[in-house]
Amino acid sequence: MVEEAAALKEESKKAAKKAAAAAAKAAKTENVSAEGGEDAGKDYSEGLYGATKMIQSTCRHADRAFVAVHDLSGCEKDALVWVRGRVHTTRSKGKQCFLVLRQQSSTVQCVVAVNDKAVSKQMVKFSGSVPRESIVDVRARVVPVAAKIEACTEQTLELHATEFYLVSAAKAQLPLQIEDAARPEKSDDPEALKIRVNQDTRLDNRVLDLRTPANQAIFRLEAGVCKLFRDILAAQGFTEIHTPKIISAASEGGANVFTVSYFKDSAYLAQSPQLYKQMAIAADFDKVFTVGAVFRAEDSNTHRHLTEFVGLDLEMAFKYHYHEVLDTIGNTFTEIFKGLRDNYAREIAAVGQQYNVEPFKFLEPPLKLEFAQAVAMLREAGVTMDDEEDLSTPSEKLLGRLVKAKYDTDFYILDKFPLAVRPFYTMPDPSNPKYSNSYDMFMRGEEILSGAQRIHDPEYLVERAKHHAIDTSKIAAYIEAFRFGCPPHAGGGIGMERVVMLYLGLDNIRKTSMFPRDPKRLTP
Amino acid sequence: MVEEAAALKEESKKAAKKAAAAAAKAAKTENVSAEGGEDAGKDYSEGLYGATKMIQSTCRHADRAFVAVHDLSGCEKDALVWVRGRVHTTRSKGKQCFLVLRQQSSTVQCVVAVNDKAVSKQMVKFSGSVPRESIVDVRARVVPVAAKIEACTEQTLELHATEFYLVSAAKAQLPLQIEDAARPEKSDDPEALKIRVNQDTRLDNRVLDLRTPANQAIFRLEAGVCKLFRDILAAQGFTEIHTPKIISAASEGGANVFTVSYFKDSAYLAQSPQLYKQMAIAADFDKVFTVGAVFRAEDSNTHRHLTEFVGLDLEMAFKYHYHEVLDTIGNTFTEIFKGLRDNYAREIAAVGQQYNVEPFKFLEPPLKLEFAQAVAMLREAGVTMDDEEDLSTPSEKLLGRLVKAKYDTDFYILDKFPLAVRPFYTMPDPSNPKYSNSYDMFMRGEEILSGAQRIHDPEYLVERAKHHAIDTSKIAAYIEAFRFGCPPHAGGGIGMERVVMLYLGLDNIRKTSMFPRDPKRLTP
Repeated sequence: MVEEAAALKEESKKAAKKAAAAAAKAAKTENVSAEGGEDAGKDYSEGLYGATKMIQSTCRHADRAFVAVHDLSGCEKDALVWVRGRVHTTRSKGKQCFLVLRQQSSTVQCVVAVNDKAVSKQMVKFSGSVPRESIVDVRARVVPVAAKIEACTEQTLELHATEFYLVSAAKAQLPLQIEDAARPEKSDDPEALKIRVNQDTRLDNRVLDLRTPANQAIFRLEAGVCKLFRDILAAQGFTEIHTPKIISAASEGGANVFTVSYFKDSAYLAQSPQLYKQMAIAADFDKVFTVGAVFRAEDSNTHRHLTEFVGLDLEMAFKYHYHEVLDTIGNTFTEIFKGLRDNYAREIAAVGQQYNVEPFKFLEPPLKLEFAQAVAMLREAGVTMDDEEDLSTPSEKLLGRLVKAKYDTDFYILDKFPLAVRPFYTMPDPSNPKYSNSYDMFMRGEEILSGAQRIHDPEYLVERAKHHAIDTSKIAAYIEAFRFGCPPHAGGGIGMERVVMLYLGLDNIRKTSMFPRDPKRLTP
Repeated sequence: MVEEAAALKEESKKAAKKAAAAAAKAAKTENVSAEGGEDAGKDYSEGLYGATKMIQSTCRHADRAFVAVHDLSGCEKDALVWVRGRVHTTRSKGKQCFLVLRQQSSTVQCVVAVNDKAVSKQMVKFSGSVPRESIVDVRARVVPVAAKIEACTEQTLELHATEFYLVSAAKAQLPLQIEDAARPEKSDDPEALKIRVNQDTRLDNRVLDLRTPANQAIFRLEAGVCKLFRDILAAQGFTEIHTPKIISAASEGGANVFTVSYFKDSAYLAQSPQLYKQMAIAADFDKVFTVGAVFRAEDSNTHRHLTEFVGLDLEMAFKYHYHEVLDTIGNTFTEIFKGLRDNYAREIAAVGQQYNVEPFKFLEPPLKLEFAQAVAMLREAGVTMDDEEDLSTPSEKLLGRLVKAKYDTDFYILDKFPLAVRPFYTMPDPSNPKYSNSYDMFMRGEEILSGAQRIHDPEYLVERAKHHAIDTSKIAAYIEAFRFGCPPHAGGGIGMERVVMLYLGLDNIRKTSMFPRDPKRLTP
């Protein structure tokens, strides 16, 4: 039966439509209903298949021993199991119907074949009529197969159905096919490349698009990044805090903020939790982190900008040198990369099935360069730039390639940025006034963290604000927070979706935001 | 020296002001500077005290072995240690200065006493001049004491300073005193009760207010609630997701939403992640949770309403009965309560020092009542209400007391709410059309979770929306999400700050939101 699964083709849309109508009609009948056919004869499977009534919590069916598809290989030969899954593909052939059932990333072949004791012609016909993506409950025997079923993740067995119920019907006409959305990017088949699903179609129909194995894996790995970030920091005595998103004054000067109507007043959406993290430090929480939405009203339509994203932010008091913090952050990344490599290998492999990506390389401890060294490397590669000029996006990318070639790492830390290109609250370098105690971190040549030692002395903060021509009356509350004794501290903010995108080597941040927001997209 | 610490009094504001000025002046000098007095004589402590220059990461002082205050009791007698802490209180007396140093919730007595080899009169004078709440670095010998120092958390030892540096000076005039803000609510001392700090003063000066032992404990316990929620669910196969806060259409009908200007358009702030959780279920994530900001534009100025709070939300596909989910949520609460009791006893005790609260009681498994039973209990207690009427706030509170008296639990689940009082997407009870498959959960008589089985059948959802006179064209996207096959599912949303408030038995939700937002408060 191996070839059957491999040969599965697009079922005709007409047939599917008809089936959906039948299923919908069946769903209206009382309880589990058998579907008589015109070509009938006595239906000896009556009551063992059909569309179930909408599940409304009438009973618990506690006797049904459900098994997860990826656990089927642990079942004994001929074990009778229940499986709830989606109809991934179907193909009817005479007295048999072959289905692939999908459950998240796992698939298994299921056969409904006429059998004069248990499975009627009508039951086979019904099974073949269920539209793709519908959810079904199947009772079946687990049958080992001799030759591997290449089309499924469960390759050593198939299910022989004895009962078959439609739980929730999908529309016959889907706006995209999961198979198409899951097609490998570098396919050898020119036909396959033509039916690629474009990004807007995917995002417009995100409920379907998210069902692909790659997407199932991406968002599980993303959950892993957050979990690792929190667990690694909590183990070092960091406390999780929550900071307000609605704020009364724009946090960084007022550009690029969204305005909110707040009762009779107006307010803003926070571009960063920075002030609040710093207040938590001034309030003796010593080491804090926060995971939450941050908002940027930038009209940037690039592969790496979102108007709303998840910030992984941390802030930490230190004793004498901000490198105490820099090293803590650097090591946190190392631990995250190790955690992903060790605990999410299956997810990384699933993404690799669709997108061709080099494994992520990192050094332990991480590579740390100074800004001036980076400038020297870029100049050697032919870039013309000033000492105190910020890195352009092309320079960042080039630097990533130069670093990779020289040090064989996809992650590195760039320390001591020019003071002139950093915000007013950045602590200047004590040994060279052109530079500052600030840093960025990079993955595959793109910035994923920006941070610094912050000025904790209120008088000096005022001095620096004036130097930047900032109206200090507008940041009085910020300055005030440091007037009650504040330890020296440093921190940084990480763009979560960027970390996942760049770790996996994906080309667009919309692939790592479950419901992305950009200047042109507010739905779904 | 026990009586010295106990006798510590408010230092004169005049003296503090003078000291702050001196400290600020000292801070301007190069590096560590000694402060000569007029009454001087040779200062043999020169270089061993003074205001340090602003810490700018010049050196690492790697040789300084810092010890946390709560670890001092593990030090050997006469060990020389470094401690960084805040000056909690000071009292100068002749040739001695007694300070209490505070580090988060821990305090220790520190003595700076004239000693003709090491500690000069000038050094003692300087130590006594440092304003409260300033941060200092102290090098000291650990000296055991015979009689307990009742005023400190470290009661069996004190520090004898040999070096004393001001790291960050606090203003001499503080808007509130930590001692006052930390005063027990039920003090026997009528003087103490008079100088209680009111809530707006606390919130206006949150950086200071958060330094009290109770607040340090509240927000560490709050981090614990989030951690437990996530860990308990992740261990059961739940995946963490992130849902957008900026949405194109108001999620629940349009009332009570904040409007955001979105480039040339306008948008809203999400009142709940519900649609997105449900989409994740329809997209095969099976069991999901999300922790994030939710927004309510309600002009409610009560002890339990915020305009922005942290939602602990979960959603879960089930096989046949929503009680599969209800029990999962109920058990999650049980596990959270056990985790707090077992891992946060110190924090609970610290809160109990300031606020007089009964320990939180719960049953395992949790008590589950049906709405009709609750109505019967209320009627028996004299309340007049209809079968299909929602619980009023006073009825909720009364019911909490009745349940506590009868079952001895502060947590219970109320199942089967009247259909009429729940939103259109709530699944009706299959056995009684007056009721629904929905539930609330309560702590100390206040609602902390609301949830239900959601209608997963698109046609039926349309029918119910029409019954509620909802314009289905406005919720087309919501309905569409269920047209591609969706398993039956249920979930709920928990107000995190409410859980912490009610677990600890506090009287106001502003005590459990680090930077609360209400209709009248947008700062800090």
